[in-house]
Amino acid sequence: MRLIDEAEKLFQGEIVDLERPECLRLLELSRVGRIAVNDPDGPLVVPVNGRADGEDVYFRLREGSQLALALADGRAAYEVDGFDEFRQAGWSVLVRGEVRRISPEDLPEHRSEWPRPWAAGERDVWVRLAGDSISGRRLLP
Amino acid sequence: MRLIDEAEKLFQGEIVDLERPECLRLLELSRVGRIAVNDPDGPLVVPVNGRADGEDVYFRLREGSQLALALADGRAAYEVDGFDEFRQAGWSVLVRGEVRRISPEDLPEHRSEWPRPWAAGERDVWVRLAGDSISGRRLLP
Repeated sequence: MRLIDEAEKLFQGEIVDLERPECLRLLELSRVGRIAVNDPDGPLVVPVNGRADGEDVYFRLREGSQLALALADGRAAYEVDGFDEFRQAGWSVLVRGEVRRISPEDLPEHRSEWPRPWAAGERDVWVRLAGDSISGRRLLP
Repeated sequence: MRLIDEAEKLFQGEIVDLERPECLRLLELSRVGRIAVNDPDGPLVVPVNGRADGEDVYFRLREGSQLALALADGRAAYEVDGFDEFRQAGWSVLVRGEVRRISPEDLPEHRSEWPRPWAAGERDVWVRLAGDSISGRRLLP
C-alpha cells in the first residue's frame, strides 16, 4: 500500500484553470461532446455532435430520442474534452446555460450546415444552448 | 446546400445499442469518464477518474471541490466513451444511480487502491455511484 501510494504520486499532474479565450478555442474546434440534462430519473449525460458559436452551442437531435425528450427548455451543460491515457493528462471545457428549441433560421449566419451529425437518420430537432458560463481545466502530465 | 446534405449522409453511420455484458466490459476498462450531477445552477458534467465494479463506480474527490460539493447523496450519472474523429465513429456507456459518500473500508475487497486519480492533491472524499441502470451505444463508421 505504501509503495502504491508513492508510485501513484509520481505520475500525478497538476490541474490548472484555462483562460476564457483558450476555452472558447477548444470549444470551437470540438465536433463531439456530451450534454447533461435531467429527465425524471435524474441527471443524464449523452454524447452528441455540437458546434459552438462563441459560448452558444448548436445541436441537431432526433425527434423522440432520449435526449430530445429530456431537453425541454431549461438548464443544461455541454462538455468537451481530450485525454491521453498514457500520459494521464488532458483538458476539458464546460459550458452551462439555457436550452431552447430553435428553427434552422435561428442558426448563426452562413451556418446552415451546423452541426453535422455523425449518426444517420432524420434530425429535425434543432437546439441551442445559450451559454452563460464557460470554464475549462487542463491536467498537466 | 444539396451537395452538403449528400456528402453528410455518405459519412453517417448507424447507432446500435450495446448488450449489457459489453457495457460492463467497456465500463470496467475505463479509467476516466464524466460524472453528471446538479448544483444550484443546474446540470454539471465534469471529467473524473472512476473505477467500476459491475454497475457500481467509485470515485476519489477533493474535499471542497466543485464536484464534491455538488455530489450530495442523490441521483447522478457516469459516462465513458471513445471516439474516432476521422472515422466519425465511437461508443459510449452510461450508468445512472444513487451517489453516496463511503469510507475506504466500503470499497470492494482487495481494491484499496481504487480509483487512482490522475490529478495531484489530497482526495479524501470517497464516493460510490450505485448503478441501477446501464446502457450503451455504438456509432458504426
